[in-house]
Amino acid sequence: MREVAIIGSGMTKFGELWQKSMRDIYVEAALKAIDDAKVDHIDGLYVGCMSSGLFVGQEHVGALMADYLGFGNVPAVRVESACASGGFAFRQAFLDVASGMSDIVLVGGVEKMTDGADVTYALATAADQEYEVYYGVTFPGIYAMIANAHMKEFGTTREQLAMVAAKNHKHGSLNPNAQFPGLVSVETVLKSTMVADPLRLLDCSPVSDGAACVILAPLEIARKYTDVPVRVIASGAASDTLALHQRETLTTLKSVKLAAERAYKMANVRPENIQLAEVHDCFTIAEIVVTEDLGFFPKGKGGEAVEKGLTSLEGRIPVNTSGGLKSKGHPVGATGVAQVIEVYEQLQGRAGKRQVRNARIGLTQNMGGSGASSVVHIFSV
Amino acid sequence: MREVAIIGSGMTKFGELWQKSMRDIYVEAALKAIDDAKVDHIDGLYVGCMSSGLFVGQEHVGALMADYLGFGNVPAVRVESACASGGFAFRQAFLDVASGMSDIVLVGGVEKMTDGADVTYALATAADQEYEVYYGVTFPGIYAMIANAHMKEFGTTREQLAMVAAKNHKHGSLNPNAQFPGLVSVETVLKSTMVADPLRLLDCSPVSDGAACVILAPLEIARKYTDVPVRVIASGAASDTLALHQRETLTTLKSVKLAAERAYKMANVRPENIQLAEVHDCFTIAEIVVTEDLGFFPKGKGGEAVEKGLTSLEGRIPVNTSGGLKSKGHPVGATGVAQVIEVYEQLQGRAGKRQVRNARIGLTQNMGGSGASSVVHIFSV
Repeated sequence: MREVAIIGSGMTKFGELWQKSMRDIYVEAALKAIDDAKVDHIDGLYVGCMSSGLFVGQEHVGALMADYLGFGNVPAVRVESACASGGFAFRQAFLDVASGMSDIVLVGGVEKMTDGADVTYALATAADQEYEVYYGVTFPGIYAMIANAHMKEFGTTREQLAMVAAKNHKHGSLNPNAQFPGLVSVETVLKSTMVADPLRLLDCSPVSDGAACVILAPLEIARKYTDVPVRVIASGAASDTLALHQRETLTTLKSVKLAAERAYKMANVRPENIQLAEVHDCFTIAEIVVTEDLGFFPKGKGGEAVEKGLTSLEGRIPVNTSGGLKSKGHPVGATGVAQVIEVYEQLQGRAGKRQVRNARIGLTQNMGGSGASSVVHIFSV
Repeated sequence: MREVAIIGSGMTKFGELWQKSMRDIYVEAALKAIDDAKVDHIDGLYVGCMSSGLFVGQEHVGALMADYLGFGNVPAVRVESACASGGFAFRQAFLDVASGMSDIVLVGGVEKMTDGADVTYALATAADQEYEVYYGVTFPGIYAMIANAHMKEFGTTREQLAMVAAKNHKHGSLNPNAQFPGLVSVETVLKSTMVADPLRLLDCSPVSDGAACVILAPLEIARKYTDVPVRVIASGAASDTLALHQRETLTTLKSVKLAAERAYKMANVRPENIQLAEVHDCFTIAEIVVTEDLGFFPKGKGGEAVEKGLTSLEGRIPVNTSGGLKSKGHPVGATGVAQVIEVYEQLQGRAGKRQVRNARIGLTQNMGGSGASSVVHIFSV
């Protein structure tokens, strides 16, 4: 297996981009990444996208993006794993370069969610249609069940959930691409509209449009393009039951644990070696559960860790320095690649006001649905 | 890059499988493949599927199939490239094994098209939504334009189109998994209902449910599982504009030519070395154009080749011995993998009444839309 590195990145601002179509935003992010990497060609293209058929009536988006990008004859394909589509697209592009099939590969994620489709219905297709969706479940409801179980089992508090939102909005306020960069206090979260008890509006990530792209190359040629190639030192993936009720517990996401174990083993690192992480905070409770399952904190202590400031920019292990899904936005197919971009820029030392000092090893964790699929990548300079 | 081989296969009968759900048919094909390969575990799973969101309201089908198959924690992901989803899923699984990441990988394709969705709308999402679909184009219309251009430019006759259908139904009559195994005469095709001039009902592949799975392993361990591993000696892919009007010509499918050139180069073989091929005959004209672009016949001579019987079971290069999309059926996501199964079984010498004698090198060609994406694989024993 060849060693693989990231040599460039580009993304759109996340938000309600009504004046642009899905292809526009993918191409915008892709051209920025191509400029950043200073490559004159690509050998292949991947698109992570969850539900373009339901959102904008367009499948076949791999070939579509190659076409509109002006690289109309390269191998191009779409990868889907619900909200982990971007992370899994990155994994497939990594395997493509690692195998020796391709050298310069563009991998991007995109989603156009605000063009009028029934967003709640489209997102619910990440859950089990026959055993969950049919009975009326939606994702705020699913994560509310997880939150209630976590609060009951470990004493996680309503305030600790709100602290995740407040921290991530603080980080996002330093990110020019964030959809909601405004600061949000714990009190404001606690007073926001109830969505699914105990989760309130400001516990939920927003509905977003956006795209994010990176360019991969074998390490041996990466130095031609950048002085600081960021190596992809591990890719771990796992799945779990789609339906929440079929799992042994609601408070551990088994796919996250397994994907992380596989990634740590491949990279030969331990959780305590990770210096920053972008994790899948689709709801505030998700960040708490995931930081436990990644091994950053003991099970049940994720809430306390936020309260103590361990996951803030100046903390022991900064989590979601980009603002996370919560503040930066969550165009579902783009999220996994946008996480990679944050870690890439942090490790290159160009994260501006939200730079984590001396960061050399970072991790991304992206998941689909309520964790039926998870993918973890570890990066190093 | 490690050498990769197929060690087992399984598929459902193709047809209107109203009594079974999408997950049922994928699992049925997967279990048959697992039994055939006699493996006791898998390291990863791929699902080729075009539009499960629109067809049955379910995305996230990689994790779903791992879950329902009882391998709930393996890495699992869906690959989409319209009607080439199965072929591209096969390519991604091939890269996974070739890279050294995984050993035993299950790759399947599935589509459930008869559950009540608007099939014409769902399939049209493979075309350019903004520049084609919005103006009312559908796929029979697109291929009718290609047929008219081919007839005008090369003198291909209406009868030659019908001969493709008659040949493929004759082959399909020998395939127990075919949706429409009945024999069809040239006269019957010519008298069938007009769909989009010059294409008639019996020029079109049907709407189908079905699933097809194969199991891949590195060649070095493949002999543990089978006496006759079938090696994957090349994978070539390419893309083209989604919209037909943006191409230089309607009568050559550039993505097919490029994918084939890349595959021939990788396998170090020439078109004349290919002893049988499964190609994407979504409409009769498609088989004629594709057999030219694969280099089996000079441009413009594909119709004549069918008329001379060169592509029939006893001909110089038997094409679509399975019955093709036309007779076997076309559950879009499953098609690319079902093509691989036909070549696999032929090269293993277990194709029964439709066995091509002494076949040692075979090819599959699968495409999305009107050829905006194409993937070609070459196999050898």
